[in-house]
Amino acid sequence: MLSLVDLLARIGSGALTPESAFRLTLEAIAMREGEIGAFAHLDRDARPSGRGPLNGIAVGVKDIIDTAGMPTEMGSPIYAGWRPKADAPVVSALKRAGATVIGKTTTTAFASVDPTRTRNPHGLSHTPGGSSAGSAAAVGAGMVPLAVGTQTGGSVIRPAAYCGAAAIKPSFRLLPTVGVKCFAWTLDTVGLFAAGTADLALALELVSGRPMPLDPPARPRIGVVTQDFAGEPEPAAAAALERAALLLSRSGAEIWDVKPPSSFAAAWAAHGTIQDFEAKHALAWEYDHHRAEIAPLLGEALDKAQAIPAAAYDDARRLANRARRDARELFAELDAVVTYAAPGPAPEGYGSTGDSRYNRLWTLLGTPCVNVPGLVREGGLPVGVQVIAPFARDGVALALAHLLERAQAAS
Amino acid sequence: MLSLVDLLARIGSGALTPESAFRLTLEAIAMREGEIGAFAHLDRDARPSGRGPLNGIAVGVKDIIDTAGMPTEMGSPIYAGWRPKADAPVVSALKRAGATVIGKTTTTAFASVDPTRTRNPHGLSHTPGGSSAGSAAAVGAGMVPLAVGTQTGGSVIRPAAYCGAAAIKPSFRLLPTVGVKCFAWTLDTVGLFAAGTADLALALELVSGRPMPLDPPARPRIGVVTQDFAGEPEPAAAAALERAALLLSRSGAEIWDVKPPSSFAAAWAAHGTIQDFEAKHALAWEYDHHRAEIAPLLGEALDKAQAIPAAAYDDARRLANRARRDARELFAELDAVVTYAAPGPAPEGYGSTGDSRYNRLWTLLGTPCVNVPGLVREGGLPVGVQVIAPFARDGVALALAHLLERAQAAS
Repeated sequence: MLSLVDLLARIGSGALTPESAFRLTLEAIAMREGEIGAFAHLDRDARPSGRGPLNGIAVGVKDIIDTAGMPTEMGSPIYAGWRPKADAPVVSALKRAGATVIGKTTTTAFASVDPTRTRNPHGLSHTPGGSSAGSAAAVGAGMVPLAVGTQTGGSVIRPAAYCGAAAIKPSFRLLPTVGVKCFAWTLDTVGLFAAGTADLALALELVSGRPMPLDPPARPRIGVVTQDFAGEPEPAAAAALERAALLLSRSGAEIWDVKPPSSFAAAWAAHGTIQDFEAKHALAWEYDHHRAEIAPLLGEALDKAQAIPAAAYDDARRLANRARRDARELFAELDAVVTYAAPGPAPEGYGSTGDSRYNRLWTLLGTPCVNVPGLVREGGLPVGVQVIAPFARDGVALALAHLLERAQAAS
Repeated sequence: MLSLVDLLARIGSGALTPESAFRLTLEAIAMREGEIGAFAHLDRDARPSGRGPLNGIAVGVKDIIDTAGMPTEMGSPIYAGWRPKADAPVVSALKRAGATVIGKTTTTAFASVDPTRTRNPHGLSHTPGGSSAGSAAAVGAGMVPLAVGTQTGGSVIRPAAYCGAAAIKPSFRLLPTVGVKCFAWTLDTVGLFAAGTADLALALELVSGRPMPLDPPARPRIGVVTQDFAGEPEPAAAAALERAALLLSRSGAEIWDVKPPSSFAAAWAAHGTIQDFEAKHALAWEYDHHRAEIAPLLGEALDKAQAIPAAAYDDARRLANRARRDARELFAELDAVVTYAAPGPAPEGYGSTGDSRYNRLWTLLGTPCVNVPGLVREGGLPVGVQVIAPFARDGVALALAHLLERAQAAS
């Protein structure tokens, strides 16, 4: 993979110019894009910005995020050739920091679950996950040092785990979702993909304007959560979580087995009601005017969603609020928790984008989640874990993920 | 004014057809639009939808809200002729209910404070208020029975008070802001304007999918709040509030003088930091690429906003959260509060859109606010009060506003 921190260090030392760093990206894309198909649109004439801390850095942006200079097609023929007026604020922030948008990365239709054409860089017959398929695959394949995606269920952490990329789903609304095609307004969260946790910390610091130091708390208290309400994981995911706990413990963390409050199970079960009720409204125009062109799995989900009454949604929101209050109590005792990033390695075949069942609760809680990739491997495919900190403690999530990543690298 | 409930009753009884009801709107527009200038775009070929409970009802939609079939120009030359791809969900909901969008109503540039060309229907030399100037003036002038606006500081309640329209700023995100040009994502709230509270209740019920019965609580407990932290009102606003308390008391309410917790003053003072920090991001593309075309007052505000650090914003959000918790406690004892809708009647002249200082706190708290228009009049100009209920008790706010409105009509 192309490391953002490493590229910038080499630019800083004069070993690379911004132009030659940028060329590395273009060469990597030329080599791998043919088999991976991570991009919905590529700007082959893109050049470094010539200024700012990210001068020379090429970024891939998920194709539900508005870009003024490039099409934004939402993974759907309904938006074929569509050109928004303005850049989304997260794109503006990247450009202000000096980055160059090299292209738009593939997305499942409207960031739902119908698979894209993108392949998993660690096993071409496997799904890269979704919905941020292109961003995860582009980073995992070493084509770009940074990519932007979004998560409503598990659309950042799951594809990152499947593609062996580090990724952060930050605290809810740390990065604005303005100019991002809405699926569910209380859930949609903009996230970042990069080679490692230090790359994520640097990028998030620049884009969010908040410091993200990587020093972990002294003697961190970390809870291991198995999310029994979401069912059993595959053995590889269980092994990855066990290994993460062991490595963190060896790195000086106190490890606690945590049984989440019952409100977590209720909130987890309520996620779908919230997501689908909001999607019914967010995609009302598409549903009313282009039902036949909506991708099949999403179309069926929207058909069903039409029947969700407002009262069921309001009840589900109350369950979510209760779980958020309980999460504050849980995290009063803990610096972070670790849990599965996905049920196992990327499934074989292209019929599905995998399963977000270990991600949904945390999207609903709005807590920052970081995927630490490749804790174990199975058949060449990486299996990650996610490190989760309390709301607004994105730096803590990154620092503890960094601790784990270093322990893994040293082991 | 054209009453939605009245028009529908006359359609229901056969006294009007949907076509003739719609024609009343077109005739009213033909008569008054020339001097008022409430519309940025008018569809003179619009016709009733032919179906649904709002068949025959023409709606004005603020020109920062996306419409697929009409331009959406944001009150700014930067968006001259811009046509979004899709209807905003609130527009889809109105259309699903059978309403027809008759036109786009004027907005201050990006819903900020630079005045529009719109005139106040109760005094042409006075401001209609802002930012939802066109929606308030169109309803206040009797041109349409229903209009949609948005509030980030005081952009629904204030212009409604100035133009003598009833209006509701619902609970935060009761109506989705998807497809609405963002100014500040934790504040922007979609609201409705109509002739009276019963019209608002019917429209909100249809658009939100929640029942909005107008039966007030038995022996309602209502607090009178003077918002001393926001400064003194003009005598007319003080008289309107006094009169509202008297009328409510005569209607069976217990009236309490309420001193808000100190967190309210702190949150009120923090509103600008939150609004302007978010606006800096939300309008980053416009600022980076079209600074010279941004309206002058907004341009200056954005210049200043560039310097707001993320830490100041995060502190301001914490103050807002504390005030929200305190609001829950305050409302544990009360069904609603009443307070000034604006400092006085609409100011003379077109240099400003008036003052939102009595609105900002409640936008930040996310509580439903209803303007009851014309409690007193000064020089022909109406002066309203706002009735505010706890978060998610929009029906209570409407029912108590209805109680006040009926007491006022009977007095």
